[in-house]
Amino acid sequence: MPPTSRQVVLATRPSGMVDEETTRLETVPQPEPGPGEALVRVQYLSIDPTIRTWMDDAPGYLPPIEIDAVVRSGGIGEVVASNSDSYAVGDTVFGMLGWQEHAVVDEGGNTAQVIPDGVPPTEALSVFGVTGMTAYFGLLDVGRLQPGDTVVVSGAAGATGSVVGQVARIKGAGRVVGIAGGPEKCAWLIDELGFDGAIDYKNDDLGARLRELCGDGIDLYFDNVGGEILDTCLAQLAMRARVVCCGAISAYNARGEAHGLTNYFSLITKRARMEGFLILDYLDRFPEAQMEMFGWVADGQVRHAEHVVEGLENAPDALNLLFTGGNTGKVVVALGS
Amino acid sequence: MPPTSRQVVLATRPSGMVDEETTRLETVPQPEPGPGEALVRVQYLSIDPTIRTWMDDAPGYLPPIEIDAVVRSGGIGEVVASNSDSYAVGDTVFGMLGWQEHAVVDEGGNTAQVIPDGVPPTEALSVFGVTGMTAYFGLLDVGRLQPGDTVVVSGAAGATGSVVGQVARIKGAGRVVGIAGGPEKCAWLIDELGFDGAIDYKNDDLGARLRELCGDGIDLYFDNVGGEILDTCLAQLAMRARVVCCGAISAYNARGEAHGLTNYFSLITKRARMEGFLILDYLDRFPEAQMEMFGWVADGQVRHAEHVVEGLENAPDALNLLFTGGNTGKVVVALGS
Repeated sequence: MPPTSRQVVLATRPSGMVDEETTRLETVPQPEPGPGEALVRVQYLSIDPTIRTWMDDAPGYLPPIEIDAVVRSGGIGEVVASNSDSYAVGDTVFGMLGWQEHAVVDEGGNTAQVIPDGVPPTEALSVFGVTGMTAYFGLLDVGRLQPGDTVVVSGAAGATGSVVGQVARIKGAGRVVGIAGGPEKCAWLIDELGFDGAIDYKNDDLGARLRELCGDGIDLYFDNVGGEILDTCLAQLAMRARVVCCGAISAYNARGEAHGLTNYFSLITKRARMEGFLILDYLDRFPEAQMEMFGWVADGQVRHAEHVVEGLENAPDALNLLFTGGNTGKVVVALGS
Repeated sequence: MPPTSRQVVLATRPSGMVDEETTRLETVPQPEPGPGEALVRVQYLSIDPTIRTWMDDAPGYLPPIEIDAVVRSGGIGEVVASNSDSYAVGDTVFGMLGWQEHAVVDEGGNTAQVIPDGVPPTEALSVFGVTGMTAYFGLLDVGRLQPGDTVVVSGAAGATGSVVGQVARIKGAGRVVGIAGGPEKCAWLIDELGFDGAIDYKNDDLGARLRELCGDGIDLYFDNVGGEILDTCLAQLAMRARVVCCGAISAYNARGEAHGLTNYFSLITKRARMEGFLILDYLDRFPEAQMEMFGWVADGQVRHAEHVVEGLENAPDALNLLFTGGNTGKVVVALGS
């Protein structure tokens, strides 16, 4: 019998959270690499909020995932067969491997990046990967952090938010405040990551706490959640504030019912700027940032957490964790195969 | 009997449009200029949407107008008595003169600017004044117009919007589309001002017309109105678009019930920027812009319109015109005294 491989495909488009109707686990023949291609045994999947947006049949920065297609996702794996000079058997690679046990990569549209020896795969997905890079370039390039800035970040206990706060501190922010859900996450931000303040949006009055912790207003707000939290922060901007729009987790499962922003008039009175970005545009500049990040991680200035979910079949539940706030740090799925 | 002067004071804070309860017409003794001061006979008032925001007891870029105080407003008048070396009797001056027949200006906090001979007072208030300068710096400095840009402006038949479109054309925009209320205004934009397209938001399907006229999306959207029109434009941005937030007329009379923006996620997928500004920050740079504007007006490249309302007592109605869309071009009140 030929070798097989399991994969998770999109069965129907979700209208809210992903549920058992949304995806289907299938067993298919293991793919064979053609000329110039390599076969990768997938070890870890990167679970990111943006995957949920690709499941909608809506215009976006990438085409929607097609029905019956493997769910698109970043991942890390080991090269187990290769007809390409770019990949050697035994290499660890990062690429858009998808929710499946085996993926084929090539030297063209579906290329992968070889991970240097000594970098743990989960760190390659988190702090040195797309989420860490999102924090770095969003904060420094889009947000143009200035020394002394009062920085607020939402989704602060998440993979990106937790790095945003720590890099802000290293780069001279005057005050770093995180918004997260629940007292445990808030304690982690302050005790482990060195945030100056943390607001538990599930139990605190966000507006009142922001006034308390950011008396002179917010100079730089890094937004991962959109909706009501973004709107509340807009009302408390300092003069010439910068709002970095990185994601809108609160809206991904609520198309049509999302909270509308009413405090955008602050952009005028405060001469403020609100700007979105996608990390895809920064791929060429990853090496400079990764170099700096390696140093910070090595000397303990940047700490990171991974939330590992075991088993390909649990990838849909892992994705939901991002929206229920069930994770601290980067969510990865370990295939353990 | 000593000479008297009429003035319009804020009687109560309006909850929506200004009505007969909002202001009170009073007759008071004509003020006498002290040392370093001059007395100005007010000739024209500049009627701007921002006046409505100053009537609210809400934080803004200037303090609210106090109850029983003269309504704050820009204006032009003639110096009729002077104890200051800065002002000579007969000078025409622009300053924050207020809704009153006589104002005192000084050399400190309430200074005025002498208007050169030959500049008609209504032009000094419109195209060479704050509204024209708002168009110029908003478009070029905040919006960073690029040659070939598809530019959309709302409130396009207003004092600022009409100048935005014309300056965009002069500076090399690829396409200029105005959003205005009613077929007459739309015809004026195309036939008189040379806009490439005009959308009548009262009768057209704004989203559909934008797709028709701006097939590749909007590169630069100059927003004067906020609310639903802003939200619809956000959904049709081009890559790396710029949204210039100049005003939010739709919201000034609707605090608490304003339309919330739900399409801000476009800022991420389009890597777009939304930025507010206040013309107050550009006062030092007026001369460079006025010089260029003089040339364009002189050779007919920039046309402008003024909507003149007669009589100080009609200033409140004149302000409402801005919100009902009853004006084409700059609204001024002529005191005719």
